Amino acid sequence: MLPDCTLIEGKIVTEETKEARTTEKRRTDGNIIYVGSKPPMSYVLAVVTQFQSSGSDEVIIKARGRAISTAVDAAEIVRNRFITDAKLTDIKIGTESVTNEEGRTSNVSSMEITLTMKKKSKSKEQ
Amino acid sequence: MLPDCTLIEGKIVTEETKEARTTEKRRTDGNIIYVGSKPPMSYVLAVVTQFQSSGSDEVIIKARGRAISTAVDAAEIVRNRFITDAKLTDIKIGTESVTNEEGRTSNVSSMEITLTMKKKSKSKEQ
Repeated sequence: MLPDCTLIEGKIVTEETKEARTTEKRRTDGNIIYVGSKPPMSYVLAVVTQFQSSGSDEVIIKARGRAISTAVDAAEIVRNRFITDAKLTDIKIGTESVTNEEGRTSNVSSMEITLTMKKKSKSKEQ
Repeated sequence: MLPDCTLIEGKIVTEETKEARTTEKRRTDGNIIYVGSKPPMSYVLAVVTQFQSSGSDEVIIKARGRAISTAVDAAEIVRNRFITDAKLTDIKIGTESVTNEEGRTSNVSSMEITLTMKKKSKSKEQ
């Protein structure tokens, strides 16, 4: 029974490594907002809260598939209406493999938008 | 009647300048693929054709609103399946003002993805 276990474990590990390569890389999970099927304003609120309550100077908005356009909407609303000094520092697009419960793999597009806000400091480095 | 006219003209000019700033800037229209509500493969075909028939080394995929996710799908399919040496050289997001036939203005998110393919040359500059 031991070899089976290792096989299964091996498989899980491989899958996770593959996923990890395309999605999360190096960041802490705290400043990432995952966009789903809610209206854009829900995510706008999440981003603004993230900037203001947790004091992070960088928020990453992530989305897959159909939610990509909602992510762009949310980022644009934040930038134009709420936090006008937030800058778009990075936009990435990519493809992720998603396996459904029947074991079939399909590809889905993904997007990551990084918004950065300069800290309000009176030093020269702004 | 003259002051009225000028007022209206002034308004129109202002709107158009605002639009121009967010959308087209400096490119020729030839290498731009506008993404709409068709399935992604239609636009994949358009992009591949653009690269291969017209010999352009840069294709810009543009989309607004819900079509943004289709644009990302198309760019990813081109890059992963058809033209694997195409590089994503630029991704921009923005907001455009759209006026409907009743004269009401609404904002819509827009996206521009620039794909660049290195020319097949035997010189060192690749």
